[in-house]
Amino acid sequence: MKRTNRDRRRFLKQGAAVAGLVATPQALELAGGSAAAAAQTVVDHNALESVLYGKRSRFVTTTREVEGRSHSEQTLIRPHPHRPSARTPLAELTGTITPTPLHFTTQHHYGIPDINPDEHTLRVEGLVDRPLVFTMDELRRLPFVSRVYFLECVGNRPNPRAETVTGTHGRMGCSEWTGVPLSVLLDEVGLRDAASWIVAEAADGGKHTKSIPLGKALDDVLVAYGQNGEPVRPDHGYPLRLVVPGFEGIYNVKWLKRIKVVDQPYLSFQEHSRFLTPNPKTQRDAYDFGPNSVITQPSGGQELQAHGAHVISGLAWSGSGAVRKVEVSTDGGATYREAELAGPVLPKAHTRFYLPWRWNGEEAVLQSRCLDERDQLQPTEAEYARYWNLTRGQLYGTVQSQLGHCNWIQPWKVGRDGKVTNGLEPVDVVVDVHA
Amino acid sequence: MKRTNRDRRRFLKQGAAVAGLVATPQALELAGGSAAAAAQTVVDHNALESVLYGKRSRFVTTTREVEGRSHSEQTLIRPHPHRPSARTPLAELTGTITPTPLHFTTQHHYGIPDINPDEHTLRVEGLVDRPLVFTMDELRRLPFVSRVYFLECVGNRPNPRAETVTGTHGRMGCSEWTGVPLSVLLDEVGLRDAASWIVAEAADGGKHTKSIPLGKALDDVLVAYGQNGEPVRPDHGYPLRLVVPGFEGIYNVKWLKRIKVVDQPYLSFQEHSRFLTPNPKTQRDAYDFGPNSVITQPSGGQELQAHGAHVISGLAWSGSGAVRKVEVSTDGGATYREAELAGPVLPKAHTRFYLPWRWNGEEAVLQSRCLDERDQLQPTEAEYARYWNLTRGQLYGTVQSQLGHCNWIQPWKVGRDGKVTNGLEPVDVVVDVHA
Repeated sequence: MKRTNRDRRRFLKQGAAVAGLVATPQALELAGGSAAAAAQTVVDHNALESVLYGKRSRFVTTTREVEGRSHSEQTLIRPHPHRPSARTPLAELTGTITPTPLHFTTQHHYGIPDINPDEHTLRVEGLVDRPLVFTMDELRRLPFVSRVYFLECVGNRPNPRAETVTGTHGRMGCSEWTGVPLSVLLDEVGLRDAASWIVAEAADGGKHTKSIPLGKALDDVLVAYGQNGEPVRPDHGYPLRLVVPGFEGIYNVKWLKRIKVVDQPYLSFQEHSRFLTPNPKTQRDAYDFGPNSVITQPSGGQELQAHGAHVISGLAWSGSGAVRKVEVSTDGGATYREAELAGPVLPKAHTRFYLPWRWNGEEAVLQSRCLDERDQLQPTEAEYARYWNLTRGQLYGTVQSQLGHCNWIQPWKVGRDGKVTNGLEPVDVVVDVHA
Repeated sequence: MKRTNRDRRRFLKQGAAVAGLVATPQALELAGGSAAAAAQTVVDHNALESVLYGKRSRFVTTTREVEGRSHSEQTLIRPHPHRPSARTPLAELTGTITPTPLHFTTQHHYGIPDINPDEHTLRVEGLVDRPLVFTMDELRRLPFVSRVYFLECVGNRPNPRAETVTGTHGRMGCSEWTGVPLSVLLDEVGLRDAASWIVAEAADGGKHTKSIPLGKALDDVLVAYGQNGEPVRPDHGYPLRLVVPGFEGIYNVKWLKRIKVVDQPYLSFQEHSRFLTPNPKTQRDAYDFGPNSVITQPSGGQELQAHGAHVISGLAWSGSGAVRKVEVSTDGGATYREAELAGPVLPKAHTRFYLPWRWNGEEAVLQSRCLDERDQLQPTEAEYARYWNLTRGQLYGTVQSQLGHCNWIQPWKVGRDGKVTNGLEPVDVVVDVHA
């Protein structure tokens, strides 16, 4: 555990580069002081830049998982190699708050804009009595709320048979969002009688836009400037984004610059070119995600090191409200036991659950299911396919074409060697339903 | 808002240093791809290291405020210049979760240890039936909870007349903590009849130790390995710390390595040399913090830029449980109005409140008070002094000697010029009660 002076110097040097610091006499005094204590087990966390802005342990190296480096997962949304997306490393996380630097970020179709908040405005116009333009300062002088909500990409499950939980479910995260309820802004501008939808537009190169029904806009939608206590980061929409609780990620427009009140949904470029599936079989009948859950520990790619006491842990969530109950099976769904909920249960937020489990060294199939406050129960893969009247081959062909809301139960298989693999059976023939 | 190519190159270079990356062909491909898009308003957030681990906007430069560089604030705890403490920049934060890199960290009396989690253990022994040693892996296989709790230094208010809210209240933060309830571990080892206290010991150079009554240890104390979704960071106790909800910060032993069950409180070095005040007038009659609140926006050092609509916002908390109500006064306490609570109200957690307020350009004194679920009302400074039978001069002399729990109301004065200053009157004669 002890570090040599040479190691220390290397770390300090790197540390100084991090903050872009020139070594001022003050900084040197601090660094020198720590060096004197190097005989103890003290590292560079005393260096000035680490005191100003804390760092992780050198033993913690978890990162997001970059997408777009290969096309082995075929989806209609082909990641642009120069504008990569990244998944949340779910198996490495504790609790329910996703650390902001590890929160998934979907591909940015036109790159991440570099916005000066002093120059950024939000225009609210359309079928309103008084169109208004808000500066960031003006938005911060309005009533606000702070709420914990999950955010999930509609294409969160492009490959249900991926090896790890980051591969199967990594396009989601959960944050404390702070911002102005959209209803406050719409009240300021005054809605006209014909108003029935809003169109939200981003400041990115492609002007990403999305239509949202007025009822939802007046319900719990936020114009958010804060995420987990700090300003929303650039890859999450700095300085302003929509948060549309429980709805698909694409509704949560980043870099928000305009809200237009209209009398019908607009079919934007993103929608008609990439996100709408014309096949009525796969047409979605709701915007909010259904009940869902997944075991993150143990999960695919991990290995149980010992027989005996373990804890099965995971996340449950529902776009329809709060989680009522989570059940866990260790025998592939033959029997279920109710899991403990490890923290506060908040609506449309990740809910952490766990179940103590004794592994006897035999094969086991671990899976969880969520019951939400509307009494919606998370389905099995077979139930899901039956609902949509699809064969399994068709289902998997459809998944890859962005069916979305693929909330069926995820089993993880524990082998006798302790290795954990995806418990969903291979698909013999994937049938492209659009072919 | 556009960046030049030269700016881009500088940023990318610095970015590569941050992650300590050697420019591999893969990384170069990514960086080159972004450079091609520089004609758009795209910055280095597409660079590989930013995708792996997200970054803040270049317009967001908030840091912790380093203490220990001057001795202008005289306290019994003299910060070691080479082991600086740092305060949370409260005025810059939104919501209730403190971003981990900005969460206050008190002085580390013996530096921050560099602990390899694979070698770290927690020993639980003393008046128990089966002393046990837990590895980190074993702890992670036990039942756990995730809870949002504030953490506050007993010396949070060394200078109630500081200029800014970071100066008056910056030694506190609020996080989602994940870990094993201490009661689970104590149940594993089996308590003997004489057990009535525990002593928690740290792995730092000075073996910081603290005694905690058994009733509290069995109630809501956590042995925490997770903070805001990621492993607890080194300056917060990596890989393991105690979280003792509502109690003074010093109870929340970092780098936890040993818990000894005993039959009486131990008077540790830290306690008898630095933290106990022998004067019975200032003896504390409870361990948990009382009801408290402070306005963070607008607060000292800020300046109102315009007349008209503003929102007064701040944090309320109580070591005794949940916040029941927060009231805000804009006339120095003559009248109060009930504030809105902006998010979920969780026990022993920061609670964000706000009150819309129209500034007419006249002088105003803004202050908040908290009523907690035990019906304890936050006192004024005068009420606090009266309770302890101290003159104001004595009170301020005592504050500087670590009275602790200085939860009286904090007024901020808004001048006609919009400038916000500390509304507590100057103290004519500070009387050192220990003199």
